[in-house]
Amino acid sequence: MLLCDIGNTSYHFLQGETNYKKSVLTFDPRTLKETVHYICVEPRIKKLLKTLANWIDLSEKIDKSTYYPTMGIDRIVACQAIQNGVVVDAGSAITVDVVSEGVFKGGFIYPGSRFMKEAYKNISSALDYEFNYELDLSTLPKNSQDAISFGYLKLLYSEINSYKMPIVLTGGDASLLKHIFPQAQINSTLIFDGMKKLI
Amino acid sequence: MLLCDIGNTSYHFLQGETNYKKSVLTFDPRTLKETVHYICVEPRIKKLLKTLANWIDLSEKIDKSTYYPTMGIDRIVACQAIQNGVVVDAGSAITVDVVSEGVFKGGFIYPGSRFMKEAYKNISSALDYEFNYELDLSTLPKNSQDAISFGYLKLLYSEINSYKMPIVLTGGDASLLKHIFPQAQINSTLIFDGMKKLI
Repeated sequence: MLLCDIGNTSYHFLQGETNYKKSVLTFDPRTLKETVHYICVEPRIKKLLKTLANWIDLSEKIDKSTYYPTMGIDRIVACQAIQNGVVVDAGSAITVDVVSEGVFKGGFIYPGSRFMKEAYKNISSALDYEFNYELDLSTLPKNSQDAISFGYLKLLYSEINSYKMPIVLTGGDASLLKHIFPQAQINSTLIFDGMKKLI
Repeated sequence: MLLCDIGNTSYHFLQGETNYKKSVLTFDPRTLKETVHYICVEPRIKKLLKTLANWIDLSEKIDKSTYYPTMGIDRIVACQAIQNGVVVDAGSAITVDVVSEGVFKGGFIYPGSRFMKEAYKNISSALDYEFNYELDLSTLPKNSQDAISFGYLKLLYSEINSYKMPIVLTGGDASLLKHIFPQAQINSTLIFDGMKKLI
Protein backbone atom coordinates (compact mmCIF):
# COMPACT_ATOMS: atom_id res chain seq x y z
CA MET A 1 0.00 0.00 0.00
CA LEU A 2 1.36 3.36 -1.02
CA LEU A 3 0.34 6.46 0.96
CA CYS A 4 1.12 10.06 0.12
CA ASP A 5 0.78 13.30 2.12
CA ILE A 6 1.19 16.25 -0.24
CA GLY A 7 2.15 19.59 1.26
CA ASN A 8 3.23 22.89 -0.22
CA THR A 9 6.80 21.72 -0.82
CA SER A 10 6.82 17.93 -1.14
CA TYR A 11 5.07 14.63 -1.80
CA HIS A 12 5.69 12.59 1.36
CA PHE A 13 5.31 8.87 0.60
CA LEU A 14 5.00 5.87 2.89
CA GLN A 15 5.48 2.39 1.47
CA GLY A 16 5.48 -0.27 4.18
CA GLU A 17 7.91 1.03 6.80
CA THR A 18 9.78 3.32 4.45
CA ASN A 19 8.94 6.99 4.01
CA TYR A 20 10.55 9.32 1.49
CA LYS A 21 9.90 12.70 -0.08
CA LYS A 22 9.77 14.07 -3.62
CA SER A 23 9.75 17.77 -4.46
CA VAL A 24 6.50 19.21 -5.80
CA LEU A 25 8.67 21.07 -8.31
CA THR A 26 10.13 17.98 -9.98
CA PHE A 27 7.91 14.97 -9.23
CA ASP A 28 5.31 14.04 -11.85
CA PRO A 29 2.45 12.00 -10.30
CA ARG A 30 1.56 10.59 -13.74
CA THR A 31 4.72 8.45 -13.62
CA LEU A 32 3.26 6.29 -10.84
CA LYS A 33 1.06 3.44 -12.06
CA GLU A 34 0.19 1.75 -8.74
CA THR A 35 -2.67 2.79 -6.46
CA VAL A 36 -1.82 5.73 -4.18
CA HIS A 37 -4.03 6.90 -1.31
CA TYR A 38 -3.34 10.56 -0.70
CA ILE A 39 -4.28 13.81 0.97
CA CYS A 40 -3.25 17.14 -0.53
CA VAL A 41 -3.29 20.75 0.70
CA GLU A 42 -2.15 22.19 -2.65
CA PRO A 43 -5.18 23.03 -4.88
CA ARG A 44 -3.24 22.96 -8.15
CA ILE A 45 -1.85 19.45 -7.53
CA LYS A 46 -5.20 18.25 -6.23
CA LYS A 47 -6.81 19.26 -9.52
CA LEU A 48 -4.26 17.23 -11.50
CA LEU A 49 -4.64 14.17 -9.25
CA LYS A 50 -8.41 14.16 -9.76
CA THR A 51 -7.71 13.27 -13.39
CA LEU A 52 -5.61 10.21 -12.45
CA ALA A 53 -7.62 7.06 -11.67
CA ASN A 54 -4.94 5.42 -9.50
CA TRP A 55 -4.67 8.42 -7.09
CA ILE A 56 -7.40 8.09 -4.44
CA ASP A 57 -8.28 11.16 -2.40
CA LEU A 58 -8.76 10.10 1.24
CA SER A 59 -10.20 13.48 2.20
CA GLU A 60 -13.51 12.30 0.73
CA LYS A 61 -13.72 9.53 3.35
CA ILE A 62 -13.75 11.95 6.27
CA ASP A 63 -16.84 13.14 8.10
CA LYS A 64 -15.82 16.80 8.18
CA SER A 65 -18.85 17.95 10.18
CA THR A 66 -16.94 17.84 13.49
CA TYR A 67 -14.09 19.93 12.04
CA TYR A 68 -14.38 23.34 10.38
CA PRO A 69 -14.46 24.35 6.71
CA THR A 70 -11.06 26.09 6.44
CA MET A 71 -9.18 23.55 8.58
CA GLY A 72 -6.27 21.99 6.68
CA ILE A 73 -6.78 18.37 5.65
CA ASP A 74 -3.39 17.47 7.15
CA ARG A 75 -4.54 18.71 10.58
CA ILE A 76 -7.79 16.77 10.24
CA VAL A 77 -6.08 13.52 9.29
CA ALA A 78 -3.54 13.86 12.10
CA CYS A 79 -6.46 14.22 14.53
CA GLN A 80 -8.05 11.09 13.06
CA ALA A 81 -4.94 9.17 14.12
CA ILE A 82 -5.54 9.53 17.85
CA GLN A 83 -8.36 8.83 20.28
CA ASN A 84 -7.36 11.11 23.17
CA GLY A 85 -4.66 13.71 23.24
CA VAL A 86 -3.13 16.91 21.93
CA VAL A 87 -1.63 16.83 18.45
CA VAL A 88 1.18 19.37 18.11
CA ASP A 89 2.30 19.63 14.50
CA ALA A 90 5.37 21.85 14.46
CA GLY A 91 6.20 23.07 10.99
CA SER A 92 5.95 26.54 9.39
CA ALA A 93 3.05 26.95 11.80
CA ILE A 94 2.54 25.04 15.01
CA THR A 95 -0.99 23.68 15.01
CA VAL A 96 -2.32 22.46 18.34
CA ASP A 97 -5.45 20.29 18.20
CA VAL A 98 -7.31 18.57 20.99
CA VAL A 99 -9.04 15.23 20.46
CA SER A 100 -11.19 13.67 23.18
CA GLU A 101 -12.85 10.26 22.78
CA GLY A 102 -12.08 10.47 19.08
CA VAL A 103 -13.84 13.84 18.69
CA PHE A 104 -12.06 17.07 17.66
CA LYS A 105 -12.55 19.68 20.40
CA GLY A 106 -10.88 22.64 18.68
CA GLY A 107 -7.40 23.91 18.18
CA PHE A 108 -5.20 26.90 17.67
CA ILE A 109 -2.37 28.04 15.43
CA TYR A 110 0.93 29.48 16.60
CA PRO A 111 3.86 30.62 14.45
CA GLY A 112 6.58 28.03 13.85
CA SER A 113 10.10 28.78 15.06
CA ARG A 114 11.38 30.15 11.76
CA PHE A 115 8.58 32.69 11.38
CA MET A 116 8.57 33.64 15.06
CA LYS A 117 12.33 34.23 14.99
CA GLU A 118 11.81 36.42 11.94
CA ALA A 119 9.05 38.39 13.71
CA TYR A 120 11.39 39.23 16.62
CA LYS A 121 14.17 40.16 14.21
CA ASN A 122 11.83 42.43 12.25
CA ILE A 123 10.85 44.25 15.44
CA SER A 124 14.47 45.04 16.26
CA SER A 125 17.93 43.74 15.42
CA ALA A 126 18.42 43.68 19.20
CA LEU A 127 15.97 40.75 19.30
CA ASP A 128 17.70 38.69 16.62
CA TYR A 129 18.50 35.55 18.63
CA GLU A 130 18.08 31.81 18.26
CA PHE A 131 15.50 30.41 20.68
CA ASN A 132 16.92 28.75 23.77
CA TYR A 133 15.08 25.44 24.14
CA GLU A 134 17.07 24.65 27.31
CA LEU A 135 15.52 27.66 29.03
CA ASP A 136 14.29 27.31 32.62
CA LEU A 137 10.56 27.93 32.13
CA SER A 138 9.92 28.26 35.86
CA THR A 139 11.81 31.57 36.25
CA LEU A 140 11.20 34.93 34.60
CA PRO A 141 14.16 35.75 32.36
CA LYS A 142 16.76 38.45 32.89
CA ASN A 143 18.48 38.47 29.52
CA SER A 144 17.34 39.22 25.97
CA GLN A 145 17.72 35.76 24.44
CA ASP A 146 15.75 34.14 27.24
CA ALA A 147 13.20 36.99 27.24
CA ILE A 148 12.19 36.15 23.66
CA SER A 149 12.56 32.37 24.17
CA PHE A 150 10.27 32.57 27.19
CA GLY A 151 7.80 34.70 25.20
CA TYR A 152 7.75 32.09 22.47
CA LEU A 153 7.97 28.83 24.42
CA LYS A 154 6.58 29.32 27.92
CA LEU A 155 3.22 30.50 26.64
CA LEU A 156 2.91 27.47 24.34
CA TYR A 157 4.14 25.18 27.11
CA SER A 158 1.58 26.39 29.66
CA GLU A 159 -1.36 26.25 27.27
CA ILE A 160 -0.62 22.74 26.00
CA ASN A 161 0.08 21.35 29.48
CA SER A 162 -3.15 22.89 30.78
CA TYR A 163 -5.16 20.27 28.84
CA LYS A 164 -3.62 17.50 30.98
CA MET A 165 -3.73 15.06 28.06
CA PRO A 166 -1.13 12.93 26.27
CA ILE A 167 0.90 15.04 23.82
CA VAL A 168 1.88 13.80 20.35
CA LEU A 169 4.56 15.82 18.56
CA THR A 170 4.90 15.66 14.80
CA GLY A 171 6.36 17.85 12.03
CA GLY A 172 9.87 19.09 11.36
CA ASP A 173 10.39 20.81 14.72
CA ALA A 174 9.00 17.95 16.84
CA SER A 175 12.41 17.09 18.28
CA LEU A 176 13.03 20.73 19.28
CA LEU A 177 9.71 20.88 21.12
CA LYS A 178 10.55 17.58 22.85
CA HIS A 179 12.94 19.69 24.99
CA ILE A 180 10.03 21.51 26.58
CA PHE A 181 7.60 18.55 26.50
CA PRO A 182 9.85 15.70 27.68
CA GLN A 183 6.79 13.55 28.45
CA ALA A 184 5.48 13.86 24.87
CA GLN A 185 5.61 11.15 22.25
CA ILE A 186 7.19 11.97 18.88
CA ASN A 187 5.39 10.44 15.92
CA SER A 188 6.84 11.62 12.63
CA THR A 189 4.36 9.54 10.60
CA LEU A 190 1.20 10.49 12.50
CA ILE A 191 -0.57 11.60 9.34
CA PHE A 192 0.04 8.20 7.77
CA ASP A 193 -1.48 6.57 10.88
CA GLY A 194 -4.56 8.70 10.31
CA MET A 195 -4.66 7.80 6.62
CA LYS A 196 -4.41 4.06 7.35
CA LYS A 197 -7.36 4.35 9.73
CA LEU A 198 -9.41 5.92 6.92
CA ILE A 199 -8.71 3.15 4.43
CA MET B 1 9.53 70.58 34.12
CA LEU B 2 9.97 69.14 30.64
CA LEU B 3 10.36 65.38 30.26
CA CYS B 4 11.18 63.49 27.09
CA ASP B 5 11.06 59.78 26.21
CA ILE B 6 12.92 59.22 22.95
CA GLY B 7 12.14 56.09 20.98
CA ASN B 8 13.06 54.90 17.51
CA THR B 9 10.43 57.05 15.81
CA SER B 10 9.63 60.02 18.06
CA TYR B 11 10.50 62.40 20.87
CA HIS B 12 7.62 62.05 23.34
CA PHE B 13 7.42 65.13 25.58
CA LEU B 14 5.51 65.80 28.78
CA GLN B 15 5.10 69.35 30.01
CA GLY B 16 2.79 69.58 33.00
CA GLU B 17 -0.29 67.61 32.01
CA THR B 18 0.29 67.92 28.27
CA ASN B 19 2.13 65.30 26.23
CA TYR B 20 3.05 65.62 22.56
CA LYS B 21 5.34 63.97 20.04
CA LYS B 22 7.93 65.18 17.54
CA SER B 23 9.38 63.00 14.80
CA VAL B 24 13.03 61.96 15.18
CA LEU B 25 13.38 62.75 11.48
CA THR B 26 12.52 66.43 11.75
CA PHE B 27 12.95 67.59 15.36
CA ASP B 28 16.27 69.23 16.25
CA PRO B 29 16.97 68.99 20.02
CA ARG B 30 19.36 71.96 19.79
CA THR B 31 16.36 74.27 19.30
CA LEU B 32 15.24 73.69 22.91
CA LYS B 33 16.90 75.97 25.45
CA GLU B 34 15.13 74.91 28.65
CA THR B 35 16.17 71.95 30.81
CA VAL B 36 14.91 68.59 29.54
CA HIS B 37 15.13 65.36 31.51
CA TYR B 38 15.18 62.49 29.07
CA ILE B 39 15.69 58.81 28.36
CA CYS B 40 16.67 57.61 24.90
CA VAL B 41 16.88 54.18 23.23
CA GLU B 42 18.40 55.55 20.02
CA PRO B 43 22.24 55.55 20.21
CA ARG B 44 22.74 58.19 17.51
CA ILE B 45 20.43 60.71 19.21
CA LYS B 46 21.87 59.88 22.62
CA LYS B 47 25.33 60.80 21.36
CA LEU B 48 24.10 64.19 20.15
CA LEU B 49 22.23 64.91 23.40
CA LYS B 50 25.39 64.24 25.43
CA THR B 51 26.84 67.37 23.83
CA LEU B 52 23.90 69.56 24.95
CA ALA B 53 24.14 70.84 28.56
CA ASN B 54 20.39 71.36 29.03
CA TRP B 55 19.49 67.74 28.13
CA ILE B 56 19.86 65.59 31.27
CA ASP B 57 20.07 61.82 30.84
CA LEU B 58 17.97 60.18 33.55
CA SER B 59 19.34 56.72 32.75
CA GLU B 60 22.42 57.64 34.78
CA LYS B 61 20.29 57.95 37.92
CA ILE B 62 19.16 54.32 37.83
CA ASP B 63 20.72 51.51 39.81
CA LYS B 64 20.83 49.05 36.90
CA SER B 65 22.21 46.18 38.97
CA THR B 66 18.74 44.64 39.48
CA TYR B 67 17.98 44.80 35.74
CA TYR B 68 20.09 43.31 32.94
CA PRO B 69 22.61 44.89 30.59
CA THR B 70 20.66 44.67 27.31
CA MET B 71 17.30 45.66 28.82
CA GLY B 72 15.83 48.75 27.13
CA ILE B 73 15.92 51.90 29.25
CA ASP B 74 12.21 52.47 28.51
CA ARG B 75 11.34 49.11 30.06
CA ILE B 76 13.50 49.88 33.08
CA VAL B 77 11.95 53.31 33.67
CA ALA B 78 8.42 51.92 33.29
CA CYS B 79 9.26 49.36 35.99
CA GLN B 80 10.55 52.17 38.22
CA ALA B 81 7.06 53.70 38.09
CA ILE B 82 5.35 50.92 40.02
CA GLN B 83 5.85 49.14 43.33
CA ASN B 84 3.94 45.90 42.68
CA GLY B 85 2.51 44.67 39.43
CA VAL B 86 2.98 43.59 35.86
CA VAL B 87 3.92 46.25 33.32
CA VAL B 88 2.66 45.35 29.86
CA ASP B 89 4.06 47.74 27.27
CA ALA B 90 2.31 46.95 23.99
CA GLY B 91 4.11 48.49 21.04
CA SER B 92 6.14 46.91 18.21
CA ALA B 93 6.99 44.34 20.84
CA ILE B 94 4.95 43.55 23.93
CA THR B 95 7.26 43.62 26.92
CA VAL B 96 5.95 42.05 30.11
CA ASP B 97 7.83 42.89 33.29
CA VAL B 98 7.12 41.89 36.85
CA VAL B 99 7.90 44.20 39.76
CA SER B 100 7.47 43.04 43.35
CA GLU B 101 8.10 45.34 46.35
CA GLY B 102 9.80 47.74 43.94
CA VAL B 103 12.23 45.09 42.67
CA PHE B 104 12.34 43.87 39.05
CA LYS B 105 11.72 40.10 39.02
CA GLY B 106 12.27 39.48 35.31
CA GLY B 107 10.26 39.77 32.17
CA PHE B 108 9.68 38.48 28.69
CA ILE B 109 9.18 39.84 25.18
CA TYR B 110 6.36 38.88 22.84
CA PRO B 111 5.73 40.19 19.31
CA GLY B 112 3.37 43.17 19.03
CA SER B 113 0.16 42.76 17.02
CA ARG B 114 1.53 44.18 13.78
CA PHE B 115 4.54 41.86 13.67
CA MET B 116 2.57 38.81 14.85
CA LYS B 117 -0.07 39.40 12.17
CA GLU B 118 2.74 39.62 9.62
CA ALA B 119 4.26 36.35 10.88
CA TYR B 120 0.96 34.49 10.35
CA LYS B 121 0.55 36.07 6.92
CA ASN B 122 4.08 35.06 5.94
CA ILE B 123 3.38 31.45 6.92
CA SER B 124 0.34 31.29 4.63
CA SER B 125 -2.10 33.66 2.97
CA ALA B 126 -4.77 31.42 4.54
CA LEU B 127 -3.71 32.87 7.93
CA ASP B 128 -3.95 36.53 6.90
CA TYR B 129 -6.57 37.73 9.40
CA GLU B 130 -7.00 40.58 11.84
CA PHE B 131 -6.87 39.39 15.44
CA ASN B 132 -10.23 38.98 17.15
CA TYR B 133 -9.92 40.69 20.55
CA GLU B 134 -13.53 39.74 21.38
CA LEU B 135 -12.61 36.05 21.24
CA ASP B 136 -13.95 33.72 23.93
CA LEU B 137 -10.67 32.61 25.53
CA SER B 138 -12.34 29.83 27.50
CA THR B 139 -13.14 27.68 24.45
CA LEU B 140 -10.82 26.12 21.87
CA PRO B 141 -11.52 27.71 18.49
CA LYS B 142 -13.08 26.07 15.47
CA ASN B 143 -12.36 28.66 12.79
CA SER B 144 -9.17 30.08 11.29
CA GLN B 145 -9.43 33.66 12.54
CA ASP B 146 -10.05 32.55 16.10
CA ALA B 147 -7.38 29.82 15.81
CA ILE B 148 -4.68 32.46 15.24
CA SER B 149 -6.25 34.96 17.66
CA PHE B 150 -6.28 32.31 20.37
CA GLY B 151 -2.66 31.39 19.53
CA TYR B 152 -1.65 35.02 19.91
CA LEU B 153 -3.84 36.22 22.79
CA LYS B 154 -4.77 33.27 25.00
CA LEU B 155 -1.17 32.35 25.65
CA LEU B 156 -0.32 35.92 26.65
CA TYR B 157 -3.50 36.15 28.73
CA SER B 158 -2.79 33.00 30.72
CA GLU B 159 0.83 33.85 31.42
CA ILE B 160 0.13 37.41 32.58
CA ASN B 161 -2.83 36.39 34.73
CA SER B 162 -0.79 33.60 36.33
CA TYR B 163 1.22 36.21 38.26
CA LYS B 164 -1.95 37.27 40.15
CA MET B 165 -0.73 40.87 40.34
CA PRO B 166 -2.17 44.23 39.27
CA ILE B 167 -1.67 44.78 35.54
CA VAL B 168 -0.66 48.14 34.06
CA LEU B 169 -1.08 48.51 30.29
CA THR B 170 0.89 51.11 28.37
CA GLY B 171 2.01 51.66 24.76
CA GLY B 172 0.08 52.11 21.54
CA ASP B 173 -1.90 48.84 21.75
CA ALA B 174 -2.86 49.21 25.42
CA SER B 175 -6.53 49.79 24.62
CA LEU B 176 -6.67 46.67 22.42
CA LEU B 177 -5.23 44.53 25.21
CA LYS B 178 -7.72 46.03 27.63
CA HIS B 179 -10.30 43.77 25.90
CA ILE B 180 -8.59 40.67 27.26
CA PHE B 181 -7.46 42.25 30.55
CA PRO B 182 -10.59 44.17 31.60
CA GLN B 183 -9.30 44.46 35.16
CA ALA B 184 -6.08 46.17 34.02
CA GLN B 185 -5.29 49.83 34.41
CA ILE B 186 -4.25 51.78 31.31
CA ASN B 187 -1.51 54.31 31.94
CA SER B 188 -0.29 55.93 28.74
CA THR B 189 2.26 58.08 30.56
CA LEU B 190 3.75 55.36 32.77
CA ILE B 191 7.28 56.09 31.59
CA PHE B 192 6.89 59.73 32.64
CA ASP B 193 5.74 58.55 36.09
CA GLY B 194 8.97 56.54 36.31
CA MET B 195 11.02 59.51 35.15
CA LYS B 196 9.44 61.82 37.74
CA LYS B 197 10.31 59.32 40.46
CA LEU B 198 13.96 59.43 39.35
CA ILE B 199 14.23 63.21 39.48
